[in-house]
Amino acid sequence: MADEGKLQLIPLGGLGEIGKNMTAVKYGNNILVIDAGLTFPEDELLGIDVVIPDITYLLENKKLIKGIVLTHGHEDHIGALPYVLKDLNVPVYGTRLTLGLLRQKLKESTISADKIKLNCIKPRDTIKVGTFKVDFFRVSHSIADAVGIAVHTPIGTIVHSGDFKFDQTPVDGDVTDFAKLSELGENGVLVLMSDSTNVERPGYTMSERNVGNTFDEIFRQAKERIVVASFASNIPRIQQVITTAHNYKRKVAIVGRSMLNVVSVASELGYLDVPDGTIVELDEINRLPKQNTVIISTGSQGEPMSALTRMARSEHKGVEIMSGDTVVISATPIPGNEKMVARTVDQLFKLGADVIHEAVSGIHVSGHASQEELKLMLNLVKPKFFVPVHGEYRMLVKHSNLAQDLGIPSENIFVGENGLILEFSKKRGRIAGRVASGRVLVDGLGVGDVGNIVLRDRKQLSQDGILIVVLTLDKNKGAVVAGPDIVSRGFVYVRESEELLEEAKERVSQALEKCCSKNNAADWSAIKYSVRDTLGKFLFEKTHRRPMILPIIMEV
Amino acid sequence: MADEGKLQLIPLGGLGEIGKNMTAVKYGNNILVIDAGLTFPEDELLGIDVVIPDITYLLENKKLIKGIVLTHGHEDHIGALPYVLKDLNVPVYGTRLTLGLLRQKLKESTISADKIKLNCIKPRDTIKVGTFKVDFFRVSHSIADAVGIAVHTPIGTIVHSGDFKFDQTPVDGDVTDFAKLSELGENGVLVLMSDSTNVERPGYTMSERNVGNTFDEIFRQAKERIVVASFASNIPRIQQVITTAHNYKRKVAIVGRSMLNVVSVASELGYLDVPDGTIVELDEINRLPKQNTVIISTGSQGEPMSALTRMARSEHKGVEIMSGDTVVISATPIPGNEKMVARTVDQLFKLGADVIHEAVSGIHVSGHASQEELKLMLNLVKPKFFVPVHGEYRMLVKHSNLAQDLGIPSENIFVGENGLILEFSKKRGRIAGRVASGRVLVDGLGVGDVGNIVLRDRKQLSQDGILIVVLTLDKNKGAVVAGPDIVSRGFVYVRESEELLEEAKERVSQALEKCCSKNNAADWSAIKYSVRDTLGKFLFEKTHRRPMILPIIMEV
Repeated sequence: MADEGKLQLIPLGGLGEIGKNMTAVKYGNNILVIDAGLTFPEDELLGIDVVIPDITYLLENKKLIKGIVLTHGHEDHIGALPYVLKDLNVPVYGTRLTLGLLRQKLKESTISADKIKLNCIKPRDTIKVGTFKVDFFRVSHSIADAVGIAVHTPIGTIVHSGDFKFDQTPVDGDVTDFAKLSELGENGVLVLMSDSTNVERPGYTMSERNVGNTFDEIFRQAKERIVVASFASNIPRIQQVITTAHNYKRKVAIVGRSMLNVVSVASELGYLDVPDGTIVELDEINRLPKQNTVIISTGSQGEPMSALTRMARSEHKGVEIMSGDTVVISATPIPGNEKMVARTVDQLFKLGADVIHEAVSGIHVSGHASQEELKLMLNLVKPKFFVPVHGEYRMLVKHSNLAQDLGIPSENIFVGENGLILEFSKKRGRIAGRVASGRVLVDGLGVGDVGNIVLRDRKQLSQDGILIVVLTLDKNKGAVVAGPDIVSRGFVYVRESEELLEEAKERVSQALEKCCSKNNAADWSAIKYSVRDTLGKFLFEKTHRRPMILPIIMEV
Repeated sequence: MADEGKLQLIPLGGLGEIGKNMTAVKYGNNILVIDAGLTFPEDELLGIDVVIPDITYLLENKKLIKGIVLTHGHEDHIGALPYVLKDLNVPVYGTRLTLGLLRQKLKESTISADKIKLNCIKPRDTIKVGTFKVDFFRVSHSIADAVGIAVHTPIGTIVHSGDFKFDQTPVDGDVTDFAKLSELGENGVLVLMSDSTNVERPGYTMSERNVGNTFDEIFRQAKERIVVASFASNIPRIQQVITTAHNYKRKVAIVGRSMLNVVSVASELGYLDVPDGTIVELDEINRLPKQNTVIISTGSQGEPMSALTRMARSEHKGVEIMSGDTVVISATPIPGNEKMVARTVDQLFKLGADVIHEAVSGIHVSGHASQEELKLMLNLVKPKFFVPVHGEYRMLVKHSNLAQDLGIPSENIFVGENGLILEFSKKRGRIAGRVASGRVLVDGLGVGDVGNIVLRDRKQLSQDGILIVVLTLDKNKGAVVAGPDIVSRGFVYVRESEELLEEAKERVSQALEKCCSKNNAADWSAIKYSVRDTLGKFLFEKTHRRPMILPIIMEV
């Protein structure tokens, strides 16, 4: 083969975006896939549930794929697997918690989980996947059991940082494996792929332990019930709430589907240390004196259907927020969610709660490395080539600048794009082409069946609604025998706009008369054009709106 | 009258929200209105252009309204006037720039500007409006010519801060009028209404002058063309760009409709000091050596149609962004706009520009007072009663807490809501009732004709599209003589889903047969129900989507 002896890195997701991380590593006839994540849709993807990477390239090279290795259990790293594994049944490798969370996802999907080969690995394990020798090393992150990956190939070693920070005092004691990174660096690393999420933040990311100190202070001062909302997947955070609750002799109830799921998986697998009797049912919490209670909830992003949002709207069945409650939102709004979070905070304030959120420092820390940590990673691993990953385009550029500051020559740094083939020999790296890549939209059970035309229609429908003009033609008489009728949705209040719609009908009738006398009702497309044109102009003149106009002709 | 001798403050907008500020002050048979702003729609208000306050209360008391006084020319303070003045032709009072910007707005509206009585006032002017004596005093803000207002009534004095900060070194030299505020405080103030926007920020807001220093540094280092995007209304900011450009011997071009408008109004009225020949046409800029050019542009919020966004997409006719360009985004994203701004920054990076944005400190400062300044306002004015305004609910609560820290008793503080009547005597304040209030949605030329049903329909249409089922009945035969036909928009790609739609049609036909044989095709609503029900269940089962299903029956 032409590329034998060459190593290719092909990012299929996660470059130029935060989300749907996925990278293929190819050497000879072997492909190893790192992660398979999803992303949540931008606002303009109307009606779309989730977005996954386009895996055309992998499907075309199905036989070469030796396995998928996972860095950790966040949605943007494992969320696409229920879709990907349908078409691509290959062995999956991950840590215990990562696989536990994956199993849960597969159970909820239409895939039959038994058929998937899930292989549990531990940090410092070395496994063989196809021709590749793969090492796993511990990294600190905002979920337990996260790892980075080293892939050894005949050409050299690739290190993928995974999502990481250098937390010196992580709650679970899982410090990023400095020794392994140093060893890899000493032995020589060809390419480093490293997390760019926080490259815009100077200094160091604070330790997860800081949040524990803040919790301690809040719990000490709170006189009545405490509600803490956080990401369900942030197990170290949940651990700290439980530990602090126990210290202050409070019982804990868990609410929200994903929080219940994660707590159940994490407890079962031993990733949560819950003192006996600390976690109780919500019913019991509601019977206890308020000062003895804590509720851990989903909804830190103000998600419309989440538990905290429903509490804020007084629509939660089990929890009624009231004066005296302290609500802690232990998270930062993800870009795009700011307004939803602010609304939830406002509603909680209106119910009389004391809300501790964003503005308070120490209530949340990021799971990603800031600038000084990113430099440390580069200095430990000392790669010949550098590929910043996991970031929007500007972040990749800034990460590249940072690497150049440390002395990596710019020609050895590749600010990539999804789909680019980055090809490396021992001495050189180059862009060797491009494979199919992009986003696949998932809407309900449909994967990829919603595209630009459907989205464009949804957009137009969402802005000004639709007017449907129906009429029945008698093909023998060449005349309109029923209609035209106009039905509208999402355009105006029909009751208050009767006059407008009557006039619209009148205009359509006039247009039809002209049209039919000329064309003898034969030319449907002329009729449709005439209806659309007449009505469009009339309605814009009267309302300055442009609803979709849909003429439907029937024939008897 | 029952309320004679009583003073009422009735907020009609701006409480529990940032936007559409409007307050009525009523004493006896006199009403004075302060500001009449708009707000931009939340995402869920699909298709809505702007939102204005419900002024039912004012229309019901039309004869009592003596005038509208304006604090400054921002959209959230004057933007509703083109709508309000249609139904409420009363004298308007404002500073020169505020009225200049208002005139521009009225020109673009359907109102005939000549009929409106615009009265120009200056800071330290005292005017008589009905029974009220009204003082205006200078405040610093992110627009020139901003004022606060003191309304003297027989019961006592009300002070409205307007939007303000205590900038000690404002660019236009317009320091907030400490002396007037002190004088008012010394003479006794009954009620203070004060801006709550930045109550969550500790300390002091930085001076506008800081941005000038940052500009100086950027201009000194930039080797080629500089593009600065900011709010069009931020005249002090534009002034600083022009001054810095002049210092570095660069010519300036203005792009973007609102930027051109504001610069033209502000220059004409003398609010911009433009050295001769500094501002030139874009054509000329494009012919000059790049190091001698600056472009001032709209688009600091990533607005889809704005000049900077079009440049970022390489769709701007006059400006092509390229490597060597320095783009400065001198603004903070307004909550909700973060993603759009980030996308614009990314696209500019891809075109090779160096982009200086949010992350860089000193590139933008707020126009609103932080905590220490809010305290200073309270200490200068020393009001008996305090009403925090201009803020979301949590901000009003926090502003109330801050006032309590300064010794104002909580019973003298009113965290209000739009529509509440706050009634004051010399000694007491109380909530005396409620008037109609809320939001009026403007969509094209329609004001208030889009309501919940239309929005609900737009929402459903935007998520899963629409399926229209048409059929023609022969009323004599009692049978379907044409159709059923199914037309869909925004649901699935029709070409790829032919089978699904065929099967759907089949199901509808079956349902119709049952229905018609039973009901003799007489009961249209039974037919419609049956179609909706059959099709809804079938489609959900097949796709997990819930499009709007619209059966239309015609009769021949």
